[in-house]
Amino acid sequence: MKEIIAVVRMDMMNRTKAALTEVGVDAFFAHEAQGRGKGFINSSVLEGAESGYEEAAAVLGEKGKLYPKRMLTAVVTDDVVEEVVEAITSVNQTGKPGDGKIFVLPIGDAARVRTSETGEKAIA
Amino acid sequence: MKEIIAVVRMDMMNRTKAALTEVGVDAFFAHEAQGRGKGFINSSVLEGAESGYEEAAAVLGEKGKLYPKRMLTAVVTDDVVEEVVEAITSVNQTGKPGDGKIFVLPIGDAARVRTSETGEKAIA
Amino acid sequence: MKEIIAVVRMDMMNRTKAALTEVGVDAFFAHEAQGRGKGFINSSVLEGAESGYEEAAAVLGEKGKLYPKRMLTAVVTDDVVEEVVEAITSVNQTGKPGDGKIFVLPIGDAARVRTSETGEKAIA
Repeated sequence: MKEIIAVVRMDMMNRTKAALTEVGVDAFFAHEAQGRGKGFINSSVLEGAESGYEEAAAVLGEKGKLYPKRMLTAVVTDDVVEEVVEAITSVNQTGKPGDGKIFVLPIGDAARVRTSETGEKAIA
Repeated sequence: MKEIIAVVRMDMMNRTKAALTEVGVDAFFAHEAQGRGKGFINSSVLEGAESGYEEAAAVLGEKGKLYPKRMLTAVVTDDVVEEVVEAITSVNQTGKPGDGKIFVLPIGDAARVRTSETGEKAIA
Repeated sequence: MKEIIAVVRMDMMNRTKAALTEVGVDAFFAHEAQGRGKGFINSSVLEGAESGYEEAAAVLGEKGKLYPKRMLTAVVTDDVVEEVVEAITSVNQTGKPGDGKIFVLPIGDAARVRTSETGEKAIA
């Protein structure tokens, strides 16, 4: 089992949910998140902004700010991981910065509270 | 060490916190989350809703919507994982859909910022 | 690759972001979270509060409440994990309870949606 965490644009949520459903994944959770990817930020600018220097805060506003994102989490069996990652990628890829990231984490075990089922049965 | 993530009904938070305390787990974090479990959703309905078709949105409202949930995260030693999963299950099990899920993830290391302790000492 | 999750005081976010940038980590995500660390809580107090006993709720207000925190998540290569943990610790350590926790989780794979790059290239 793997946990797939996808951080995508807020307006891509419905497309992403549809893509997950298309590949058979129809149980997942969503969070609000803020994030940013690569891009040079001078940490003295961050410190300056924190100390109240307006110019630093202005620069930070342009380069250092965190953007609102949506984070989707699904737990799936190992055999569908690649397909799920491709599905999420294909609907979210615009080629512009901010398209998002996908992370795959190992899951040790899962349990469905309603039935006490564990392991792959819990997510089937 | 393991991270235990439990997604439960919003009104089950206090019971779940009490159950965790009962088995000796009294450090944890909580998030808001939205989620849904299994249930057939036709992805063309999702696409239709996204494109503004009212009938599709109405169907989606019934079947595809994400419900507000609470997500609880605790990091515990390996020897208590089973007991903690049983404790969370026992207080959240109503037998109805929506009782929630529990996931167990491996943790590589932990650090307590106040003391710089690492490993199991950080969560003891 | 590892996922580093840091739970810190809300007013420490800018310092923590600066510290991460300083050690070369400039892609991360932030969430709101609520949490608490160790401290004795009698679970019968929790149950009492839930049942509406005012005295129990008052005690719970003092000892059992969850404090608002910020959770920062970064995915980094294995070789910088120790440096990143030390950087986060050094800016957040006041020596008082509530300084926070850091967890290190294994990451199986990562993908950058924009380019379809996977593995370490996805987070470089």
